[in-house]
Parts: sequence; C-alpha cells; structure tokens
Amino acid sequence: MTFSAVDSALLGPLFATAAMRAAFSDQARLAAMLEAEAALARVQARLGLVPDALAPAIEAVHADSLDAAALGTQTALSGVPTIPFVRAVQARLPKELERSFHKGATTQDILDTALALQMRAALALITADLGTVMDGLAGLAAGHRATPCVGRTYGQHAAPLTFGFKVAVWLSGVADLAERLPELRPRLLVASLGGPVGTLAGLGEHGPAVADGFAQALGLGAVPIAWHTRRAGMAEAGAWLAALMGALAKMATDVANLASTEVAEVAEPWVPGRGGSSAMPHKRNPVSCTVILAAASAAKGHVTTLLDAMASAHERPVGLWHAEWHALPSLFGLASGALHEAASLAQGLVVDAPRMRANIEQTRGLLFADAAAARLSPRLGREAAHARVEQAAGEVRRTGDALQAVLARDPALHDVDLAAAFDLGPAIAAAGPWVDRALDHAAAVRKTLAGT
Amino acid sequence: MTFSAVDSALLGPLFATAAMRAAFSDQARLAAMLEAEAALARVQARLGLVPDALAPAIEAVHADSLDAAALGTQTALSGVPTIPFVRAVQARLPKELERSFHKGATTQDILDTALALQMRAALALITADLGTVMDGLAGLAAGHRATPCVGRTYGQHAAPLTFGFKVAVWLSGVADLAERLPELRPRLLVASLGGPVGTLAGLGEHGPAVADGFAQALGLGAVPIAWHTRRAGMAEAGAWLAALMGALAKMATDVANLASTEVAEVAEPWVPGRGGSSAMPHKRNPVSCTVILAAASAAKGHVTTLLDAMASAHERPVGLWHAEWHALPSLFGLASGALHEAASLAQGLVVDAPRMRANIEQTRGLLFADAAAARLSPRLGREAAHARVEQAAGEVRRTGDALQAVLARDPALHDVDLAAAFDLGPAIAAAGPWVDRALDHAAAVRKTLAGT
Amino acid sequence: MTFSAVDSALLGPLFATAAMRAAFSDQARLAAMLEAEAALARVQARLGLVPDALAPAIEAVHADSLDAAALGTQTALSGVPTIPFVRAVQARLPKELERSFHKGATTQDILDTALALQMRAALALITADLGTVMDGLAGLAAGHRATPCVGRTYGQHAAPLTFGFKVAVWLSGVADLAERLPELRPRLLVASLGGPVGTLAGLGEHGPAVADGFAQALGLGAVPIAWHTRRAGMAEAGAWLAALMGALAKMATDVANLASTEVAEVAEPWVPGRGGSSAMPHKRNPVSCTVILAAASAAKGHVTTLLDAMASAHERPVGLWHAEWHALPSLFGLASGALHEAASLAQGLVVDAPRMRANIEQTRGLLFADAAAARLSPRLGREAAHARVEQAAGEVRRTGDALQAVLARDPALHDVDLAAAFDLGPAIAAAGPWVDRALDHAAAVRKTLAGT
Amino acid sequence: MTFSAVDSALLGPLFATAAMRAAFSDQARLAAMLEAEAALARVQARLGLVPDALAPAIEAVHADSLDAAALGTQTALSGVPTIPFVRAVQARLPKELERSFHKGATTQDILDTALALQMRAALALITADLGTVMDGLAGLAAGHRATPCVGRTYGQHAAPLTFGFKVAVWLSGVADLAERLPELRPRLLVASLGGPVGTLAGLGEHGPAVADGFAQALGLGAVPIAWHTRRAGMAEAGAWLAALMGALAKMATDVANLASTEVAEVAEPWVPGRGGSSAMPHKRNPVSCTVILAAASAAKGHVTTLLDAMASAHERPVGLWHAEWHALPSLFGLASGALHEAASLAQGLVVDAPRMRANIEQTRGLLFADAAAARLSPRLGREAAHARVEQAAGEVRRTGDALQAVLARDPALHDVDLAAAFDLGPAIAAAGPWVDRALDHAAAVRKTLAGT
Repeated sequence: MTFSAVDSALLGPLFATAAMRAAFSDQARLAAMLEAEAALARVQARLGLVPDALAPAIEAVHADSLDAAALGTQTALSGVPTIPFVRAVQARLPKELERSFHKGATTQDILDTALALQMRAALALITADLGTVMDGLAGLAAGHRATPCVGRTYGQHAAPLTFGFKVAVWLSGVADLAERLPELRPRLLVASLGGPVGTLAGLGEHGPAVADGFAQALGLGAVPIAWHTRRAGMAEAGAWLAALMGALAKMATDVANLASTEVAEVAEPWVPGRGGSSAMPHKRNPVSCTVILAAASAAKGHVTTLLDAMASAHERPVGLWHAEWHALPSLFGLASGALHEAASLAQGLVVDAPRMRANIEQTRGLLFADAAAARLSPRLGREAAHARVEQAAGEVRRTGDALQAVLARDPALHDVDLAAAFDLGPAIAAAGPWVDRALDHAAAVRKTLAGT
Repeated sequence: MTFSAVDSALLGPLFATAAMRAAFSDQARLAAMLEAEAALARVQARLGLVPDALAPAIEAVHADSLDAAALGTQTALSGVPTIPFVRAVQARLPKELERSFHKGATTQDILDTALALQMRAALALITADLGTVMDGLAGLAAGHRATPCVGRTYGQHAAPLTFGFKVAVWLSGVADLAERLPELRPRLLVASLGGPVGTLAGLGEHGPAVADGFAQALGLGAVPIAWHTRRAGMAEAGAWLAALMGALAKMATDVANLASTEVAEVAEPWVPGRGGSSAMPHKRNPVSCTVILAAASAAKGHVTTLLDAMASAHERPVGLWHAEWHALPSLFGLASGALHEAASLAQGLVVDAPRMRANIEQTRGLLFADAAAARLSPRLGREAAHARVEQAAGEVRRTGDALQAVLARDPALHDVDLAAAFDLGPAIAAAGPWVDRALDHAAAVRKTLAGT
Repeated sequence: MTFSAVDSALLGPLFATAAMRAAFSDQARLAAMLEAEAALARVQARLGLVPDALAPAIEAVHADSLDAAALGTQTALSGVPTIPFVRAVQARLPKELERSFHKGATTQDILDTALALQMRAALALITADLGTVMDGLAGLAAGHRATPCVGRTYGQHAAPLTFGFKVAVWLSGVADLAERLPELRPRLLVASLGGPVGTLAGLGEHGPAVADGFAQALGLGAVPIAWHTRRAGMAEAGAWLAALMGALAKMATDVANLASTEVAEVAEPWVPGRGGSSAMPHKRNPVSCTVILAAASAAKGHVTTLLDAMASAHERPVGLWHAEWHALPSLFGLASGALHEAASLAQGLVVDAPRMRANIEQTRGLLFADAAAARLSPRLGREAAHARVEQAAGEVRRTGDALQAVLARDPALHDVDLAAAFDLGPAIAAAGPWVDRALDHAAAVRKTLAGT
Repeated sequence: MTFSAVDSALLGPLFATAAMRAAFSDQARLAAMLEAEAALARVQARLGLVPDALAPAIEAVHADSLDAAALGTQTALSGVPTIPFVRAVQARLPKELERSFHKGATTQDILDTALALQMRAALALITADLGTVMDGLAGLAAGHRATPCVGRTYGQHAAPLTFGFKVAVWLSGVADLAERLPELRPRLLVASLGGPVGTLAGLGEHGPAVADGFAQALGLGAVPIAWHTRRAGMAEAGAWLAALMGALAKMATDVANLASTEVAEVAEPWVPGRGGSSAMPHKRNPVSCTVILAAASAAKGHVTTLLDAMASAHERPVGLWHAEWHALPSLFGLASGALHEAASLAQGLVVDAPRMRANIEQTRGLLFADAAAARLSPRLGREAAHARVEQAAGEVRRTGDALQAVLARDPALHDVDLAAAFDLGPAIAAAGPWVDRALDHAAAVRKTLAGT
C-alpha cells in the first residue's frame, strides 16, 4: 500500500484525485523549486546582484531531468532535499553561473516557497470542486424545498421538516468553509525569502526589495517578516482543510444513515461496479460516504501536527518543520478525494420522496406530537399539554393506534381542532424561508469563490 | 484537583484568570440562559405571541436564585440542563406566564445562545489581553531593534540577527492570530433559534422574524439557517484558540531556551516567590513559559473533539454536541492563563544584552562564517569558498583560534578584506527594516482589534 | 459550567460519577500528598534520617485543615502546589520537626506519588464498573444467543446473525481492554522519589533503600530509575482509558442506531424523567449513548497531550509535566461516566426480539442473498451465481416480490433447493459457537480482574 | 513529494527505512493477500470444502504478476481492493477452481489478515532495531556511569548527576515500550476470518475449525470472535508505536539541547555530508534528532484516527475501517525512520566529558546550592538554610564570586565544613546504583525481546 493509503497505487485512486496527486508529485515539487530559484535569479539580476543569464539558464533545466530517487538518497544524508537539489542544478548550469545560483536563500526559503506554489495549484483544484459541490447541493436543496421528510434528533424521529432544508444545512455547512477561503488564501500563499536566520542579511540593503520582488514575480504574497518559524498560516490551512472535511462528513453521516436499509430515503448515485461486495451480491455500499468519513477521521490528526509546528524554536526548529511535511500535503490529498466524492453525491444523490413520506407516517402521528401539544396548550396549559401528549404517545406505542385517534378519543379535547396539528403544511412552509436564506447565502459565497 | 486542573481550587489559579473563570461559571451560564429566554420573550411579545409581562418576569429571576447543584442532579437524569432549568424558572414565574415561557425554542437554542453570550464576554477578555501582549512585544521589539543576538537554527548558532528581530517574529506571530479575530467573531457570536428540528415551525410564519429579532436583541448575529448541526464556527474558534496558544508557545519556547542557564540571555520577570524550587534554593524556574507550553499542549487535543462535532448527524447528534462542552470552554480557560503569562513576559522580560553579545563571541567568529564565505566567493567561487570556510571552521574548533585569524593565515587570501565579514553592523542593519515592517503590521492589526 | 463540563455543578453529574469525583477532589489530592509525606518520614525514621515523631505528626494533619483555595493562590505564584503545601504543613508541625519534613524529596516526587495513590483508587472504581459492564453484557449475550437479528455492513442489511453475537462482540471489545488492566496497573501505580534531578543524592547512600521502602510503605511499585521525565506509564494509561471509552463507544454507536426510530430493535432502559425533550413530548433520547459517545470524543484529544509529555526535556520539562495535569484526571472522569452509563445499558437494555425478526423480513429475502448465491453456485459457478442473485435483487427492489419467489420463477433453477437458503437456522447456528467463545474469553478475563 | 513525505522518492529515504518500506509496499500487500487466500484454501481442502488443487494454484500466482495500478483503478470504483483482486486472481486460476476461490471470506478478512502478516514482518524489524538501540544505550550508560554532568530542570541548572544516569533514563524509557511488545504482539498478530457479518455462516458448522486452522496455517493467533469491528488491537498498536516514538523523542529532545552550541556536551555522530547547511558552511545540524522529533509529532495524530475506528458501527462501518489504512502503516513507516536514527545516536553519540565538567563549573558553585543548604541545615534549620543559600546565590550572580567563597565569608558559618557540599563525589555515587538498576531492567527486557 505504501505507508499512506493515499499514496498507494492499489488504494490511492479511491482516496485522492489524479489532479491533486500531480500537484504534490515529486516532480511538481522539483519544478516548483526550480520556479522559485528562477524567480529569485530574475529579481536579483534586475538589481545587478547576479548575471542576467542566470534566470534563463535555470528555466532551461527541466524538473524531469532531475532524478528524484537519486536526490532522495542524498536527502537522507543531508537532512533536507535542497542541498542535493542545489548541487544537481548547478551541475546543469554554465560553470560561470554556478556561484550565483541560490544566492542569499536558505533551504527553507526554497522549500516553503515551492510548497506555496504547489498549494496555490491545490487550492485552485479545491475551489473548483467546492463550486461543483455547492452547485449540486443548491440544486438539490431547491428541488426538494417542499419535499417533506422526517427531522431526527438523537437518532429519534423528532418533527417533520423538508429534505430541501436538510440539504440546505449541508450546503450552508460547506459555504461556511468556502467563505473563509478568500481570507485564508492570501495568508497561506506567501513567498519565503529570509536567508539563514530570516533577515536576508546576505543581500545587504537589497533584502526587502528582493524579497518583495521575489514574491511578486511568483504571484505570491509578501510577508512583513520571515515565516520560517511563524507558522500560523500552515496551521490555519490544516485546520481549514480538516474542517472542510468535517463539513463534508456532516453530509456523509446523514447520507449514510438515510441510505441505510431501514431508512432508505436516499441512495448514492448508481455507478456500475460501485459499492458491490465480494461476498454479498445484493449489497450496494455507500462508497462516497466511506471515502469522505475516512478522510475526515484521518484529517483531524494532521491538525495536531501542524499546531505542534507553531512552537518552532528560534530561527528553525529541530523536527517541527519537517513534521509539517508529514501532515499538510496529506490533508490536501484527503480533501481532494472527499470533495470528489461529495461532488458525486451532490450531483447524483438518488432521493426517494415517497419513502420519506412513508417514514413520516411510520410513527403514526408521533412526529406531530409537538404540534399537537401546541394545539392543546391554550386549553390545558403548556406543561399539562406536554404531559397529555406524552401519555398519548405511550398509548400509541402500546396500541398501534394513531396519535390523532388516541387524542380524539379524549372527551375533554373533543372541541380542539387537532387535524391542523397533523398537517404537514406548516412544517413545509416553515422550512421554506430557511432554505431560501441558505441558498442566498451560498450563492453570495459562491460568487466570491468564482472571483478568486 | 477536580478532573481538570484548570478548574481546581489548588491548581486552577495557575492556569486560568479569575475573569475568564467568572465568564464560564455555572452562574454565568444560568444568567446567560435567562438572558436568552428574556430576549426571546421580549421579541415574541412584540409580535403578540406571548404576554408583555413575560420578559420582565424572566428578568426578575436572578441566576443566583437557581441552585446549580440541584439542577445538576436533574441534568444527570434528563441528559440536558435545559429541562430542569425551564422547570425551575417556571416555578418562579407568575402562574399565568408559565406556559408562554421558552415558547418555540429547543434545548439547544438556549444552550448555544447562552454559550455565544459567554463567548462574547470571553473574547472581550482575550481581545484586551491580546492588546496587552502586542503592546508589550511591540515595545520590546522597538527597544531592541539594534541589540545584536545569535540566530539559531536546529539548536545551532547560525548567524547574527537582533533581539528586536526575534521579538518582532513573536509579535507578528501573535498578530497573525489577532488579525483573524474580526473575521472569526461574527461567525462565532451568533444566536441559535431553530426549535426542535431547526425550522422553528412552532412559531409558524413568524419564525424568521423572531429568530432575527432574538439575535438582534442579544447583540448577536443572525444565521441563514439553523446551526444545531452546522458547527464550523465552533471548530474554527477551537482551532483559533489552539493556534493562538501555539503562537504564544513559540515565544515561550524561545524564552525558555534563552532563559536556560547556558544561554542566559533573558529571564522571566522577577516576582518575589515565583519560580522557586522546593528543593533547590538557587533556582528560578520559568513559570510563565511552563503555563503557556502546558496550555498549548492541552489545547491541541480539544481541537480534535471540536472537529469531531462537525459530523453531527441529522438535526441533533448522539454525543457530539455534548462533546463540545468538554472542549470549547476549556480552550478559553487555557487561553486566558496563557495570555496572562504572555502579557507578563511581554511587559517584563529581563533582557541581558551584554550576555547576548558575549554569546555571539562564544564561537570565535563561526557565527560569521556565512558572511566570510560571501567575501571569499568572488575570489574562489561560491562552492569553493563554502568549502574553504568549512575547513577553517574545523580548525577553529580544534585550535580555539578565531575564524578571522585562521583565514588571515592563508596567504591565498591575504588581500581579501575579511574584517568586514566579522562586522555585526550589516546583520543589525539587515534586521532593522523587518522589525519596522512587523511593527507596522502589528500596529495595523492592533488598531482593528481596538475597534472591535 | 466551569471550564470543563465534567467539573461543572450543572453538567458534571451527567458526565462523571460522584465516587470518581471524590477520588480527584482537591482534598483527595492533599490527603494523598500528606500520605506520601508521612510514608517518606516513616521510612526515613527507620533509617535514622529523621525523628521518629515526624511521621505521626504528619499523620495528625488532616487534609481538610488545609485550605485548597489559599494554597491555590500561592500555587499561581510558585508554579507548583508543593511549595505552599510544604509551608502549610510545616506550620502545623512541632517546630523541631519542621526541618525534617519533605527531606530529600522534590515537588514532582510528592505530586506524582499522590497522583499514583489517586489513580489506584480510580482504577479500583474502574475495575468494579468494568466487572458490572461485563457481567451485564455476558448475561445479555447468553440470553440472546439465538435471537436472530440483521447483520449490517456499511449501514446496509448484509446477512442475518444473532443479537447475542452482536453483544458478544461488544463484550469481547470490553474484555480486550479489561485484559490489559493487570499489565497496566503495575506500570502505572509506582511511587516517585528521585529528589531534584532523580538521583536522590540528598539521601546519600540511603537513596535506593528509602525509595524502595517509600514505595512499599504506600503499596506502590518501585521503579528501576526516576520517572520524572520517563512518562510511558502515563501515556499508556491515557491511551488505555481512551481505548476503553472507544470500546464502550462501539456499543453506544450500535445501540444508538438500533434504538433509532426506524430500526427500533432496542431501547435504553426506561428511567422516569430520562431522555425527555424540552420541546418534544414523545421523545426518548438515548442519554447513556450520548454520554458515552461524548466521552469517547473528548478522550482522544487528551491522549495527544499525554504523548506530548513523553518528550519531556532533561530532568524536568518546561510545561509538558504540567500538561499532564490537564489531561489524565479528565480521562478518569470521562471514563467513570461512560462506564456508569455502559453498565446501565448492559444491565437494562430493552431488546425487542420481534422487531428484530420483522426487520429481517423487511427486505423480502435480500438478507439471504449470500446464502442463495451459495446454493446456486454448484449449478452456475460462483461468479455467475453471484451475478444471478444480483439481478434478482434488482427485481426484488423493483417489484416488491420476495427474493425466493423471484428466483423460483426462473425455470433454470426449478430443481435447486432454495428454501434452505432462506432458513434462519444456519445463521443462528453459525453464530452460537462464537458467542460461547466470547463468553469464555470474557469470563477468563473477568476472573483475572476480580483477583486484582 | 507525494502526499505523505514518508512515501516520497525525494524525501522518504530520510524518514523511513527501505526494509520497512518493502514490508508495506503494494506488492507486499498483494503477496500477503495471496498468502492468506492460499492458507484459506489449504485449510478448506483439508476439510473437503474446496479442491486440493486450489491452494497450490493460488501459490503459483505471483504478486508481481498483479498490476497494482490497474487494480487501483478498480478499487476506486468498488471501494475496496479485494473485489478486483479476487477477479484478477481468478483469471489466473484454472477455470474449475475459480468458484472455490475466496470461499466464505469477506473483503475485510483478507485485508486484515494480510495486514497482520505485514505487521508481523514490521514488528520483526522494529524488534531488531529496538535491540540495537537498547544495546547502544546500555553501552553508553555503562561507559558514562561516572561522567559528571549537569542536571537540568525547567531549562535551569539544578544539581549534578552523571551522563550515564541521563542515558539510563533514555534506555529505561525505551525499555518501557520494549517490555510491552510481547504483550502486544499476540493481540495484534491475529487472523481475520468471519465472512460477511463475522459469523462465518457460509462455512456452516466448519466455521470455527476453518478460522482456527486458517490462523494456525499463517502462524497468526486465533480470536474468540470476529474483530471486524472490534479494533482494540489496532488502537493499541498505534498508541504503542506513537509512545515508542515518544520515548525516542525524549532522547532526541535531550540530545538536541545537549548538542546546541551553548551546551555543546554531545554531538550527533559525524557522517560526511550529514547535517550541512545550504547557506551556512560551519553548521552541523542534528539530523537524527530532526527525523525523530518530526516522527513523534506526526505519530500522535494517527493515534486519534485509530481511536476513532474503535467505534465502528455494527458489522462494518462507513469509513472508520478505511480510516485505519490512512494511519497504521504510516505509524510503522515513521517508527522505522525514528528507530534507525535512534540507533545511530545510541551507537555513535559523540560525548564531550570535559565540556560537561566545564558546564558544571559555569555557575560557580550554584549547582551545589542544594547540597550547601543541606550542610547549613543542622546549624540554621532547613528553611533558614534554604534562605541563606538563596541570598548567597544572588550574591554569586551579582559579583561573579563562587558560592563557596561567598558562604565562607560569612563568619557565622566559619566552622561549617562547606567543602564537602561542593564535592561532585556524592552526586556521582548517588547516580550509580540507579544506572545499574536501569541496566539490569533493560537487560531483562532485552532478553525477552530476543526470544520473540
């Protein structure tokens, strides 16, 4: 499997998209490192610090010409990949340019900047997938704005609502995270150029100008001061990704239960060959929910690691920066798979409205107990009405009679208009405006997202 | 100790402030629940849904008149405190108002809204403390803008920088979190009013109006749709608090090392009786760092729990909402103690600039190896210069001679101006602009913070 | 609520037992500290290191005479409670004994030893509760050894088994943890006596003898070398407690689903007033499951903190020891509540066997698809049989006809004995031996537990 | 990098060993799946359930003949790799054996059993590395049994001990975990054979016999009842691995600090090319510590995921089993790298005993303050002696005079024999017996380990 299932040839395609995989491949990282070095050379050349020929010479080196495995062997020795990388690139440069390569930069500058470039690509993928998920959910919520459905609390039938309302909650949950992306992005997508201890002293008075130019050349943000050991952005990104998977896990939790045999109100989209069982011919397992819930569970732990890294000592820590490498890219991988499956659900969820209706009736009116109590309240007082309905509910469970019938038998209540309490109309009507508000909110977020 | 050290009479005062403790006391929670119920009554009265007398009657009930322990016994039975709370309040209301109390609301509405009110108070405390920490650090960074100091990577002396630069990184790290507070606050400080399944159906067509009015009456935000099982705000708050403690832990990690006997560049503020040892008369332990680092370690775990809660099933989950109660208030408690100690450090850190200077000289010029290599580069080429200095560094370690002297002995280098490489001036000069940028950034954030 | 819900007067009784609360009260900690000091004095007196009168004098000091809140104020100053504690006890000793008190010990010795004493009491409570849970589950598994029930995978009906088998898996899951208790206990319940840096140098040649005698006097284990910064035992205990809650959460997850309205195969024990809803008169919420699942979610995070503490620096760390105080006692508190509710479930779960039978029939024979395919296999080959049943399953879903009828309609299969495939007997028979094995295993573990 | 740094060609060699990588390769997993299927066939043939020719036919299929990437594409569809795996193997079997392949087993049986086989190989690697680490540390502890060294608490010089004592604490910390391996192994290395819902009903009365024979044939343990959703073993293994990395992190934390420029008491083994800096020619970074501390940080999070999986619903969960795939193999990978680097430290740590001595003297006698106070105690009383030394310590700090000289100036103390207090002898003598005990304990554990 490889150590991480997400990286496995055998298992990985289930858990991460090919596009995200490409964004975090070794070659993508080497290409991003080269891009960072070339940008540095270009900016430095502009200031006369290195020869003009350097940047084009770096750009002429292709990532594919670098042997990741050979570099890896040397990384195990040196402790960071930058040292063998620098040597390998220098060997491909004209002799006279060698000494100008990587000028003023430190290992972490190149690696963190490369990571920012990779994360920019990764966030673009996530943004697109978020849009697909939100569009799908918005359509689903609108389409089922008036489809009555059981509301469940603590696993128990509680009161009726609409399926559109449920989906609107999912949608709003995803929008909660999408809304934060424009805030997060500029904090995360920043260049790193601080030199050995962050002051970029090797470039003398040119330091800030080179750093800002470097960032600009790469289309990344510039920072007020080195972030070698100021890792709030990474921790925020990690927590955001985990929370995004949490929002998708909310949907998956609901779908998995709604798709369970007893509830059977929805089914995952039918895809030939999907969700079968090696032993049980009739089974159709909720594979999308499985992938999403596995991702959300795995994601949480990585957040811990990224929070650890915030306490990085002095100008570079012993271990906690390397620990980020174990956590952050994996979060992007997991998120890609979870979003992919969420998009599939959002676009193709099979909804069985008649079954939803049947489930409402399954408890013979108990679902309307709250409404019935409200009807009795003016007559009996709220506490007594509550108690009366509780007692009637017991009778429903014992006798199998409908709650309305049980209450109608009570002479003391013969002139209370109980029928209205058992009308689904008010529940449907009450849900509608909330669906609309959630759709409006999500549409506004969606628009912001599109602009990014 | 009680289960949590933060709540212990014996240990708690070390870990949380009295003000934060008051914000999360049982009486504060009961008061907030009463405040929520009163606001609900006021808004409903305006719409003619409950008698005008209800809100004043609720307001006349004082939280102190409710017996938290007695309610607690009943909470253990009912599973939520709201049921006994509602009963206890009703018993204090005029008979005819009883039935109108808590109308349309569900348990979670009152508890979540009360928590939002408590968190508003808590965030105000945190905002004030953040200001104190940032002001202290800004002063420290400015005051030591040109105090030379060793830069350390992987625990090794790397190159010189200034102590002001180090502090500016801490300051910027805290500002990173402070900057997010205005974004977080409106997402977190929202009212909850959805009724049993979130649609507020019990209030018929008045639902959205009551919900919005309720929020407004309490000075809280209104949401597009129920957040009973849409918990991104709680998870964001938890991750933010943990990251805030992470930013403080960065400072504490550095301070603890700088205050270690061998480094001895700083000391925690001298407070009589603080940091003594029961066994060692000469010891002065870094108590502030201890509190901060313990808080950061404990905080991480709570984030996991809050991420769990995002996957809350349907309209109310079995357990994951209750799990938030175990995690979120504890994070506020831990943050209060960590900020309090950070403020003490920021305002009173004892800095020993001569010792910083002495430590720079401790390695006999090796700290300037990077600069020396840069000087040799034009003559030898960058790689060879690097190698030459590496070799000289070995000689320094073996002989105890200064690096400058070792290099000066090399006839091949007799005409290279090495002295400049061993000048602290450029390192100090290089650090300055970054300190200024960090101060400017922090000042801008600080201003936003003040306005909140 | 206090910061931690477990400590709250309003919420705590829901989440932890009174007995466990007493074990971790401030007074219990002070009493344990006094007990440790008295044992130290007794052992030292035996070796002539302190006066014989010291131990009785310490024993005469009652924990209740110490003011936890007053000590707490000083703890906030000193950073550890031992310094004010030592002073407070000395003030209660005869003048001439003062100087002999706490001889050779360091703060951490007294606090860690006191914690070990508290954990001994706590583990006794847990052992008793584990026994109750296991006895209840064993009875339930045996009683339902042949009660047929749906087996569910991925939320889907998969194949029949027995309810006794399901319970046997829960039981075995709890036994898995109970089995480890006799291994864990001696590693956890050890005394600490190392003095300032662990070597107990203050007692000269008597060090090891005093340390061993101290442990023996307290009925705790002796260690080969100081555990001030060797914290595997604490981390193991934390992970064990969290895993125990995980095992209970397995049961609670299943029960919550089985108790859901649609499944309705079990119900939590009926307790008047339990599980009611402030808004919905007919609801009966699974409160025990809620408490257990909340505990399991909160527990995981604390494990992280205890793992952190393993990397404690040198002879005492800056923060990570204090971090343990935030985590370990809370785990005991959470475990006490989870076990208490699990015992309630194990002893009183209401099982609806007819409903289990009805649910089996709900899918019109699909539950027997695997068995049907096995019957067709000799005729069609395994793959084709699987495919044939898959096709028939689709017809069942479309038409509502029973699987057996659908297959019987196929002339190619007219001579296959399908009836046997739809017989529950084999499924019940197959489950039985596993139930017995699980009962035997649990009984063996139970016996070990009783002996501890 | 691939998502996980441990799997990256560029970074992975730094973080995991080639041997462990091989144990968790896709081909190793496929080979283990084939081994499980063959064992199943062999046992079933013995009972006449499948043809005798099946097992040899399966054994003739080589894992390398299976295309992991092609299977992966189908895994993404089916949700588990077993379905395409079964099909691919069947295609390689004689037609008449196809239908007998994988008889009675479910997907999870094959995958969990294969994982157990992989973990057996992995634990053997870990056992060997643990032995190397323990042997190295035992030699180091014995060799420095009497090498005086500063004891440090809260980052401050506290009192003298020996370097051998420090190493003995590391050794004992590793032994704590090694000691648990023989307990953990039989709980973890168990076969899985339960069929669709755990009862193995497809094999009728032969179920238990086949399951036990299957386990025996593979050299794995048999379980009392299915562990499809009884995951204590996985959680225990994960917590054990994380704690093992925690024990190594204790050593790495100390080494990184001892190797810091200011302390300089140890250095990581000199390996040409290791620990260099791309920018700083004189640097030698502690790469081994970096790898270990990064591993320990990343490990913690995975434990959370494995604890999650304990609450797997019913007979197979939606997601939580898959989540284990994200966590457990990664822990083995991280552990392999951490142990490899720990072995390097244990075998080759460069110890600078003269520097340790110099550091003891750095504080001009303050390190002996505790001993000095003990000397003054009989004269002044313990509190007053403590206060007198505290005052003298202040004078030492102010004047730079030695503590002994300062105290000797006090006429009131002129006849106290202070010299003995400043003698390192007692500290060295006190440390010795503890080193011996730790060595004995570790040797006993080591012996058990060798026998496994």
